Amino acid sequence: MIAVDANGADAGPAAVAEGAYRSGERVLLFGPQGEIGSRGSEPGVDSRVRVVDAPERIGGDEEPVRAVRSRPRASIVQAAKAVADGDAEALVSAGTTGPTLAAATLAIKRIRGVHRPAIAALLPLPAGQVLLLDAGANVEVRPEHLVQFAYMGAAFMEHVAGIERPRVGLLSVGTEAGKGTPDVQAAHERLAGGALEFAGSIEGFDLPNAAVDVVVTDGFTGNVALKTMEATSRVTRDAIREAAHSGVVSTLGGLLMRGSVAKLRKRLDPEGVGGAILLGLRRPVVIGHGSFGPDGLAAAIRLARRAVDEQMVERTAAALEAGGALRSAPAGSVNRG
Amino acid sequence: MIAVDANGADAGPAAVAEGAYRSGERVLLFGPQGEIGSRGSEPGVDSRVRVVDAPERIGGDEEPVRAVRSRPRASIVQAAKAVADGDAEALVSAGTTGPTLAAATLAIKRIRGVHRPAIAALLPLPAGQVLLLDAGANVEVRPEHLVQFAYMGAAFMEHVAGIERPRVGLLSVGTEAGKGTPDVQAAHERLAGGALEFAGSIEGFDLPNAAVDVVVTDGFTGNVALKTMEATSRVTRDAIREAAHSGVVSTLGGLLMRGSVAKLRKRLDPEGVGGAILLGLRRPVVIGHGSFGPDGLAAAIRLARRAVDEQMVERTAAALEAGGALRSAPAGSVNRG
Repeated sequence: MIAVDANGADAGPAAVAEGAYRSGERVLLFGPQGEIGSRGSEPGVDSRVRVVDAPERIGGDEEPVRAVRSRPRASIVQAAKAVADGDAEALVSAGTTGPTLAAATLAIKRIRGVHRPAIAALLPLPAGQVLLLDAGANVEVRPEHLVQFAYMGAAFMEHVAGIERPRVGLLSVGTEAGKGTPDVQAAHERLAGGALEFAGSIEGFDLPNAAVDVVVTDGFTGNVALKTMEATSRVTRDAIREAAHSGVVSTLGGLLMRGSVAKLRKRLDPEGVGGAILLGLRRPVVIGHGSFGPDGLAAAIRLARRAVDEQMVERTAAALEAGGALRSAPAGSVNRG
Repeated sequence: MIAVDANGADAGPAAVAEGAYRSGERVLLFGPQGEIGSRGSEPGVDSRVRVVDAPERIGGDEEPVRAVRSRPRASIVQAAKAVADGDAEALVSAGTTGPTLAAATLAIKRIRGVHRPAIAALLPLPAGQVLLLDAGANVEVRPEHLVQFAYMGAAFMEHVAGIERPRVGLLSVGTEAGKGTPDVQAAHERLAGGALEFAGSIEGFDLPNAAVDVVVTDGFTGNVALKTMEATSRVTRDAIREAAHSGVVSTLGGLLMRGSVAKLRKRLDPEGVGGAILLGLRRPVVIGHGSFGPDGLAAAIRLARRAVDEQMVERTAAALEAGGALRSAPAGSVNRG
């Protein structure tokens, strides 16, 4: 069973519900029953999707941790609690990163010995899929956080995305070990002596080229790089499209190219991939893009299902332990439960 | 007179010399006389370009500050000294960022009260020119550095690029003032209360869209964002070109579009803009892209000339002072001369 928060998608709760139906998976859907419709509540119609009426929604303008703590009836809080209580095996939300991160971290908790959960964005690039983490959960990190991100990202790409011995790169301002901040240099040294297929430091150039399978960075740089890539790709396509309308000959050319460009767009569509994954928690958590429609949300739900089936969490914990990357300090944080 | 280092360009010293001739400016060219040829040394042939034989070159694999300090005969060191001694008014190099930054900072020195020089990259985007700084001189910065970058970048865009009241954005992970690292938040607060046309925090999305004229960030994030943009633009264009060859109809379409796409590429060509500018020093310093050919280097030399003519340094110092952004601590650093 996958717990899904129906609030938060730009397209509205009904689109999330439609995605739940299309996923083919067993889903516990938290959202406003009135907007979702009754398909899930009529016995026998589609018993795979069960709707729990939860109209209360945490907005993007609220301070996430405070909102999650003070509003137990909010849909994302109830969905995360269902996972923590064992009623569901994974959590999926649509586009509300802050509240999802807060609700999941507080209820589902971190894997024992993990410093910080990270948002890992799965990018469909022309040369292949790349996992970029952290994409924004931690704007400041220490070297030991970057090292854990590397193990967590590699475990996901190996066991869920099915890439054998994924290559891991550390994002920096040059490929030499001596480049970057002191924290990046320290992480480089630890990764170079570790158990992963470490490709060393990489530059911004290497990210869109898919030079490695996993790109590790802090949440500030990762967030900026991710959004810059997304917008640059769009701006470039728009400029070419505009150039294609600059005259009769070009316009005809643009029309003739339309079919193959549409195919390309479909292949590079983030909706096909399923969104971002929250790594480092005790259950899989997938965050769809706010702009996803039903198909994107169905892909997000199937991605969560695959992470459960492939025992992503258990294998991540084992990889962190085998690599000596778990926090060695005694338990003490209230977040660790 | 503009001092130009002929070493460092991928295309070799002769291409830099050719760029110097094409610029139409008076140039003092430091490089290997044997490779540059004798055009500049024959009296009357082209008296605007004077060649100083300086075959010694600092390579990209050397530690820049140590190399600059220990090798006074290296071409970039001699060129920077010519500017410091008043024999030339500005410095231009082709692509060797580390040695140029070190040689210029040590010889030409910072504007009094400036903490750190910054590399400002002038980006030709479909929606207009954007100045991104710091693009890699300082991988770690404090809030007062970011504030100075904002004033320095705005002064360049206003007085050299000719944009009235340039809008300045602070790169962050969200548009709210409370987003980003504590240092970014502190810089945001100071800029919001300052004299610039401050557009607030911007996201990675806003960079390729040219939502502002000046994008301020630390040298780590700026370097990653710049290289990510450059590579994403190339990867997107390559993918579309490949799609255009995926069948007979598309191939014909691609051929018909070729003219207008070539025009677009020319408009977005970094060679037309002149490269990156080192801001915060007592004389203008321009660093071309290592890949520039003669036309790109000619544009870099003309950009340096314009910065001299428009009194960029004096106006930058005045703007920093008027904005209360100069360092108030007493002089003491050996770098300040």
